[in-house]
Formats: sequence, C-alpha cells, structure tokens
Amino acid sequence: MERPLILVTNDDGINAPGIRTLITIMKDIGDIVVVAPDSPQSGMGHAITINSTLHSSRITPKDSEITEYSCSGTPADCVKLAINELMPRKPDLCVSGINHGSNSSINVIYSGTMSAAIEAGIEGIPAIGFSLLDYRWNADFEQSKSFISMITLNALNNGIPKGVVLNVNIPSVKKSDIKGVKICRQAMAYWIEEFDKRKNPLGQEYYWLTGKFINEDLGEDTDEWALNNNFISIVPVKFDLTAHHAIKGLNQWDFK
Amino acid sequence: MERPLILVTNDDGINAPGIRTLITIMKDIGDIVVVAPDSPQSGMGHAITINSTLHSSRITPKDSEITEYSCSGTPADCVKLAINELMPRKPDLCVSGINHGSNSSINVIYSGTMSAAIEAGIEGIPAIGFSLLDYRWNADFEQSKSFISMITLNALNNGIPKGVVLNVNIPSVKKSDIKGVKICRQAMAYWIEEFDKRKNPLGQEYYWLTGKFINEDLGEDTDEWALNNNFISIVPVKFDLTAHHAIKGLNQWDFK
Repeated sequence: MERPLILVTNDDGINAPGIRTLITIMKDIGDIVVVAPDSPQSGMGHAITINSTLHSSRITPKDSEITEYSCSGTPADCVKLAINELMPRKPDLCVSGINHGSNSSINVIYSGTMSAAIEAGIEGIPAIGFSLLDYRWNADFEQSKSFISMITLNALNNGIPKGVVLNVNIPSVKKSDIKGVKICRQAMAYWIEEFDKRKNPLGQEYYWLTGKFINEDLGEDTDEWALNNNFISIVPVKFDLTAHHAIKGLNQWDFK
Repeated sequence: MERPLILVTNDDGINAPGIRTLITIMKDIGDIVVVAPDSPQSGMGHAITINSTLHSSRITPKDSEITEYSCSGTPADCVKLAINELMPRKPDLCVSGINHGSNSSINVIYSGTMSAAIEAGIEGIPAIGFSLLDYRWNADFEQSKSFISMITLNALNNGIPKGVVLNVNIPSVKKSDIKGVKICRQAMAYWIEEFDKRKNPLGQEYYWLTGKFINEDLGEDTDEWALNNNFISIVPVKFDLTAHHAIKGLNQWDFK
C-alpha cells in the first residue's frame, strides 16, 4: 500500500497537546495535513459557519515536513475546508483528537471531535475520533500512543464500513493497565444540568452550564462499561439518524 | 387530558416569523413557554455553551398570557435552560421551529432546530422539529398551520416512542396541494461544498461556505422523495448513534 494521505484535526485547537500527540503518531503512518481550529471549540457539536466568513492560515513553512493550517471555523468547517480547498487530493483517512476528555455515550452528540470525524464520514472518507478520559491540558497522552497507532493501522488495512465512523475512547491509565479493546454500543446515559446562577457587577443574572453525568444503562456491551473496566471502547457511529424501528408504529397514527 | 405544558423554541431566533407562527398554533393546544435564541443560530448543530456564560431575559410582562424568554445561547442551551431553570415543571412536549428552510435528510445533522428537539428527547421529553421548505424570512407559514396542529395532536394523543424525536418537513406549497403525510427514512444525501474564496481590503483571503445538495438515494421511502412529491415528511430520529450492524465486522479486527 502507498503511504496514505491523512487529515488530522480536532476541537481543542491546533496548539492542544492532544493533537500534537496525534500528529506524532500519524506522521509515522502516512503523509499528513493538519487543519484544525485556531481556538478551542469544545461542545460545538456539528456546528458549521454559514452566517459569517471563514479564514485559514498556513502555519508551517512551505518546505516543512508537515503541512499545518489553522482555521477560524468549527471542527466540521475545518474538515470541509481541508477536503475541498486545502488538501492536494481527497484524504484516505481523517483522524480527530486526541480529545482532552471523554466522548463516550451521549457525549458523542455534543462533541466537536466527533463532529469532525462524522463530517469526514459524510463526505465518504474513513474517519476516527480519539478521546482520552482526562480533560486536563497536561493529560498524559504518551500512554495511549501505541493503541492509537494499532487502531489506525487496523482501520487502514480492514477498511471502515461505509456510512460508519469510529468513536474511540481511551481510559486515562498506564499503558500496562489497559486490558484491551472492546467494540461497544453507545451507553444510554445523559447529563442532568446544574446551572450555576450568578450576578454580574451590574446585578444582572447569568449562568454557567455544569452538570452531572448519569448512566443507568447497566449493559456490559456499552462503552461506559468498557471504560470503567479499563478497556478502550470503539463505538461504530452512523449519521443516518432514522429510528427505523419506530416507522411501523408511526404509520398507525391518524394523519387526517 | 389536562392542558399540556409545551416548550417552544427554534434556531432562527425569537423574532423569526416561523416561531411566531408556531406560538400561535401551540397556544390553542396547551400552556406554552417560549425560550428561544436572541439571535439566529442556523447551522449550530448540537453546540452547547461551556466556555462562556449564558443569560436569558423574560421579554413578556409578568401578567401576559404567554411567557417568553430570549436566551444568549444555542438552541440546545435554550432547551437545557428552559427545562432546568425557567419552566415551572418538566414540559409535556417540546416543539422547535418552524424553521425557515429544509431540515430533511443529512441536514438534520447541521440543524439547530433539530438539535433543540433532540436535546429535549435526550432529557426524556417528547419533541418535534418543524421545518418549512422556504428559507426566506417572509415565507408563507399560514399554509402549514393546520398540518402542524394535526401532527402535534397526534403526538400528544399517541405518544412519541422513547428515544425518538420527530423531524417534520413541510413542502412550501398551497395547503390544498399537500398530498398527505408520509413516515420516512432519512435520504442518504450530502452536500458538495463550494467555497467562495474572496480577498478582504487588506488582500487576505477568506471564504464563504456554499454548496450543492446531492441526493443519489432513489428510494421512495425517503424524506426527499416525499417532499419532492408534495407530501409532508416525518422522519423518526434517534440519538443512539451506534451502527449496530457494524459491530460484528469490527470484532474481526486484530487488536493486538
């Protein structure tokens, strides 16, 4: 196989330690182009920029080994711009991350990391989002490197099924404590919001969004179970959101 | 049945004609609270505000028939704030829209309108997103009123299955030309981006994101087919993104 062309992006911004680690891993696997947000975009979900303009800057010199662009947009914007304007050809793979913090279970919906991977998937490019279960800027990404490399090579060799992107979450433990990799379903969990209500110096109220993560899904085939038991979780994620099982029931409604 | 408590929101902003129409329809069906963005939030996907603060203002007088709040956040923020802070109790239904423009097929992923409905669904509240296939500010929402009312009453009477929210799209034609309602699957369509590259007065390049919608999915059970044939489409949408069909194949990979 020729060296694959790999698009690297994230949602924590191009200077985040997580993406710097991912770049180090990927440059041993293929030729890479980095297109990532110029500032943190956590929680951006699948936002795209349609009511304002986008700009990008090449931040590596013309003759440097790796081509890197920072972009003013969201993670989904970065992927669109990369594929359609900045890359020499359609990439063979898109990797997003390594996210600082979990994107397991329902977090996939809010995740900028995963929205970048999903955007690539929609455009027909095999894609993987990687997240480490440590939200800190100085999280220890070293422990996860060999696993990310191994999963990426698997994806390149086996091919990711069409219409599917991979959501990979990695426990934040020593490499030797990782028990293996589990293919999982998304746990049916949710957040209970806790709005922290404050007053500004003018006496006006404002809120910080905080919350508590609730997982009542006890299945041992879920990503939450795997992560809690020191397995790396891989959830195959799709962007056909149709609840096919509900179609029959809805056809009984009376639409007159 | 007691009068239901209905949360009304959207992504085009609280002053958009689409939500004003939806309010008119819903106040005949139940007691309503409106919590909607203070400015347009189209294309926001499932973004939430975690790195900055949120504020909301009650914009109707204390004794007015309808309670309305404008909120600085995204559509998903509005729903979280409504449910957890602003409403007297958990609503019986959340309706989002009427969006100015289509949210059919892959647009569901980018849609702020649908992200509000999906957020309500995640929090266990029956939810429906309504969109009219006319993006103009002065679109004719009158033609859709009786259908929206009929679909909402169906949802209240029959109950929306757990883990499912409804994505309703309405052709922009005369009421008498609507052929009926079809329960559909999301068409497998996508956008080909066309970045409009320009230079600012300082000579720096910037982009506007535009695109062309491509639907190669010829199935007659899709939302695109229904809409092109003057039917209202209802796609049941789920937020368990697991591609269950892909799990078996991924288990054949070599994770060593």
